[in-house]
Amino acid sequence: MTEDNIMDETLKSIRHSASHVLAQAVLELHPDTKLAIGPAIEDGFYYDFDLGGKTFSTEDLTALEKKMKHIIKQNQTFTQSEMDIDEAIKELKRKKQPYKVELAEALKKRGETKVGFNTMSLGKDEKFTDLCAGGHITSTKEIGAVKLLKVAGAYWRGDEKNKMLQRIYGTAFINEADLQQHLEQLKLAEERDHRKLGQELDLFTFSELVGAGLPMFTPRGTIIRNEIEKYLSDLQIIRGYQKVWSPHVAKNDLYKTSGHWDKFAENNFIVRGEDPDAEVFVIKPMNCPHHTQIYASRQRSYRDLPLRYFEISTIYRNEKVGQLHGLTRVRAITQDDAHIFCRPDQIEAEANLIYDIIEEFYGTFGMELTPRLSLSDPQQPSKYLGDRQLWESAENSLRDVLKKRVKHFEEQEGEAAFYGPKIDFEVKDAIGRTWQLATIQFDFNQPQRFRLEYIDEKGKKVQPVMVHRAVAGAIERFMGIMIEHYGGAFPLWLAPVQVMIVSVSDQFNDRVYELANELSLAGIRVEVDDSKETVGNKIRKAEGQKIPYMLVFGEKEASGKKLTVRRRGSRDMEEVDKKKFITQVEKEIASRK
Amino acid sequence: MTEDNIMDETLKSIRHSASHVLAQAVLELHPDTKLAIGPAIEDGFYYDFDLGGKTFSTEDLTALEKKMKHIIKQNQTFTQSEMDIDEAIKELKRKKQPYKVELAEALKKRGETKVGFNTMSLGKDEKFTDLCAGGHITSTKEIGAVKLLKVAGAYWRGDEKNKMLQRIYGTAFINEADLQQHLEQLKLAEERDHRKLGQELDLFTFSELVGAGLPMFTPRGTIIRNEIEKYLSDLQIIRGYQKVWSPHVAKNDLYKTSGHWDKFAENNFIVRGEDPDAEVFVIKPMNCPHHTQIYASRQRSYRDLPLRYFEISTIYRNEKVGQLHGLTRVRAITQDDAHIFCRPDQIEAEANLIYDIIEEFYGTFGMELTPRLSLSDPQQPSKYLGDRQLWESAENSLRDVLKKRVKHFEEQEGEAAFYGPKIDFEVKDAIGRTWQLATIQFDFNQPQRFRLEYIDEKGKKVQPVMVHRAVAGAIERFMGIMIEHYGGAFPLWLAPVQVMIVSVSDQFNDRVYELANELSLAGIRVEVDDSKETVGNKIRKAEGQKIPYMLVFGEKEASGKKLTVRRRGSRDMEEVDKKKFITQVEKEIASRK
Repeated sequence: MTEDNIMDETLKSIRHSASHVLAQAVLELHPDTKLAIGPAIEDGFYYDFDLGGKTFSTEDLTALEKKMKHIIKQNQTFTQSEMDIDEAIKELKRKKQPYKVELAEALKKRGETKVGFNTMSLGKDEKFTDLCAGGHITSTKEIGAVKLLKVAGAYWRGDEKNKMLQRIYGTAFINEADLQQHLEQLKLAEERDHRKLGQELDLFTFSELVGAGLPMFTPRGTIIRNEIEKYLSDLQIIRGYQKVWSPHVAKNDLYKTSGHWDKFAENNFIVRGEDPDAEVFVIKPMNCPHHTQIYASRQRSYRDLPLRYFEISTIYRNEKVGQLHGLTRVRAITQDDAHIFCRPDQIEAEANLIYDIIEEFYGTFGMELTPRLSLSDPQQPSKYLGDRQLWESAENSLRDVLKKRVKHFEEQEGEAAFYGPKIDFEVKDAIGRTWQLATIQFDFNQPQRFRLEYIDEKGKKVQPVMVHRAVAGAIERFMGIMIEHYGGAFPLWLAPVQVMIVSVSDQFNDRVYELANELSLAGIRVEVDDSKETVGNKIRKAEGQKIPYMLVFGEKEASGKKLTVRRRGSRDMEEVDKKKFITQVEKEIASRK
Repeated sequence: MTEDNIMDETLKSIRHSASHVLAQAVLELHPDTKLAIGPAIEDGFYYDFDLGGKTFSTEDLTALEKKMKHIIKQNQTFTQSEMDIDEAIKELKRKKQPYKVELAEALKKRGETKVGFNTMSLGKDEKFTDLCAGGHITSTKEIGAVKLLKVAGAYWRGDEKNKMLQRIYGTAFINEADLQQHLEQLKLAEERDHRKLGQELDLFTFSELVGAGLPMFTPRGTIIRNEIEKYLSDLQIIRGYQKVWSPHVAKNDLYKTSGHWDKFAENNFIVRGEDPDAEVFVIKPMNCPHHTQIYASRQRSYRDLPLRYFEISTIYRNEKVGQLHGLTRVRAITQDDAHIFCRPDQIEAEANLIYDIIEEFYGTFGMELTPRLSLSDPQQPSKYLGDRQLWESAENSLRDVLKKRVKHFEEQEGEAAFYGPKIDFEVKDAIGRTWQLATIQFDFNQPQRFRLEYIDEKGKKVQPVMVHRAVAGAIERFMGIMIEHYGGAFPLWLAPVQVMIVSVSDQFNDRVYELANELSLAGIRVEVDDSKETVGNKIRKAEGQKIPYMLVFGEKEASGKKLTVRRRGSRDMEEVDKKKFITQVEKEIASRK
């Protein structure tokens, strides 16, 4: 286990323990409360409570936080124990905790005979006991800093048909400094919230009629999408990738062959006709099986490989409404997808080529990459599919790629998928949050399931290696992250409107539109503000829309060859020769900086 | 009714009658045959027969055609009559025609009390009687020319669970010259069949696992798709259209509001969860409702209009397998779609702008356009939705557009949709076939159903006019047509591989790849053939792949600055200066000629 992992586990224990501290505090201040569940989550924890119809106020949260700090200071200890399940159910009934009873009964139904409990004590004095599978710190003092963040409604078990509970969100850290840094980050993230900016900058929209998690992109948002997609295309085509196209629907036979059908759960969109004999269709939840069919459409020779198919195509997953979030958790997921079919001796070169693309792409956005190598567990070779020698050589190739490219990288044994090793990349955004976006994933399974082959030098039929790889990941999620990364102030190449011409008076409108035309023909996205408002207001509006360049156009500009340029975020006006301005802007766009 | 229409109706009657002649001929030569149905279809007719498990041979067809010609020469007359339905069923049972009995019983079930029959007679001698709703010529002599084309299997009522019947296809014309012209066209069409060329040129593929009607495009085919899509984009963006993006899925609520839900039949892909209360989703069968939601996402002012949203997006329709055909009848239909939201006073200008796009687009492909104006029926104003004055002004605008642009156009009263008038365009391909592809369709209904509005000059809320328009129609179908239009020999801008460099010997390979790189950097799609085959074979292969330019590269080319160029279809080699060649090719690509 690496240092980072230990840190993650410690924080998780601290936060899980903090949720118990919260539950204890709630029971002390609101004794009739029924407890539901309280897990650690990314960046914090929550606990769901049934207050019998009442809700928590901000004052309640303040009081609860104070009570929690008191409990932490007492340095209560955590002790994990086990109890016979029937006894446990009796005990929970006695304590009038119906949600806990329901949880224990569900465990019994699954065949469990014992359940875990965690008890918080002050000396010999038991203060609070909760149904719990474990994962705690030793005593509350290890919770260096705690903060309650907000309260929200949440259905019991996430099901709209159940009762709405009160969910308190909080977070906890090893020390106060870490907490403060996190709170600062949260504040920044809130200011940059892509859902808010998306509305203000008119980038995308949702409609109740269309459904949750199914965004529509307005003209401005579509420009950003398309620029990102075009950049991804450019990076790949120059490296010998070929675009392909596959439909968004396939018969379930495709997924029976790929092996996914058995694992399909309720989060797949499945079309079944009323006739039980009718074909069953699936809205594709991934592109790989389709791409195998393009590969399989011809006989391939060792000379044809590698074949690098890429496609930016939308896949669909029917996520629960409660799990959706703006663009970062959607049901329509446009994947920047590629599948490489190569010979075993091409693994290292292909991994390097993908790495080049990922590195150049994130370099453009000024984002730092942290790669992590996921390997098989050498103690359990039977867990993995495919030839052991191929695994070893692929793992060695990936390690060599990383060794040559980065000073430090994590290696995790046992983290590989059953079908192949991989490199995942974490990416850090402008306010310090990390996102898992890019990946290079080898696959020894799909080629076998689809019986893919090529003819080798000796005329023998051999199975190719398949590589899945993502650069941006999902376009929607990436866009959400980009909106927050830039706080809406996109670099020129991504800005939906690159230049706003502010007309000083109607009398210059002809010249203003002439100029707009000239810029437009140079491939610059330009708009004109010829409304009746004051120049000051127009500039403020353009600034609010975070438009990179504003050109104020009045008598002086109409009679000369100079333009008056105002850059986004600057108070200064600059006089620039028109031709020079156009050339500069063209260069800036092309550089994608 | 126009002349074209009369012609269509006459041909339809001739062909329908020819199918009866065929049935008579079959019964004479194969007396135990059970008759199914025999309609006129586009370009001909067919008749389905049950031969009791036997099949028709080519010799049978020859004999049948001979017999038909004999019947035609006899000049038998057609007489239409009616019979009580129960009597008819009895009569058909007596004649041992179970399929006809089934048809008559189905009519009875629908509440019919009488059925039609058609009788062919020679003088007073009744030769053949068939269950028939009518639509015949007077006597067989009007069938100027007849030809049986092929025989194929076809399930009774198109249902795979039913018995497989023998379907004989044929065609008939007013005279022999028309028939010969048609047969010539069929021969040309067969040589150019896009399904055959698609395989030979490696443009697209189907997979049984993915399903019928769901094509996948290989790298070469994807290039053509993307070039067409890019051209459509270019034509529109320069005219103020804005790209938008919408998901391929929506809740059924969207279609309940649009009014389509009630009309949704089995050819829609509908996703119903197992829980009857779960959301019901539809794979979108059109883009319009989504686009109304983008319009509705903000308040609009008269100053914002027209708003022209365009999107090239795939819609899905679950067509019956038997109705699918290569790329021209598919289940995955990528629509070149746009919706314009405008003020009533902008109708004419918008129609003209769309016409400009359509005209420029088809001009590039060298295809002739025939517009047809579909108007409301002034006798039945109640059939149409929306303000009568708006209808009249829109109809007048469209007529004015056509009057100013074309010498002759058809006007069809009563052919408008209930929601608005339209202009449809027929397009003629290189072998004389016509296709209905482009359309300009006004819609006064959707804006009302979705309560779309804008604020007019007086601050009042007003309903915008919506325009649907297609230029290429479906990209898949258009591609299928283009493959046949060009017989696979695409103009340079569409050719997947534009230049093939034929290496004379391995020793020049470095220089060959250098040249390929240079062309590639100039944006030219180039491939190298450095295989061990002879130069002659390599050229034949490139010619077979219909590659526009071949460069033969050997000692002479390596030591000089000239290239040896061979154009597709020419036997001559030309010496051209390298720079000049690159400039020429770049120009030819940019011109899209």
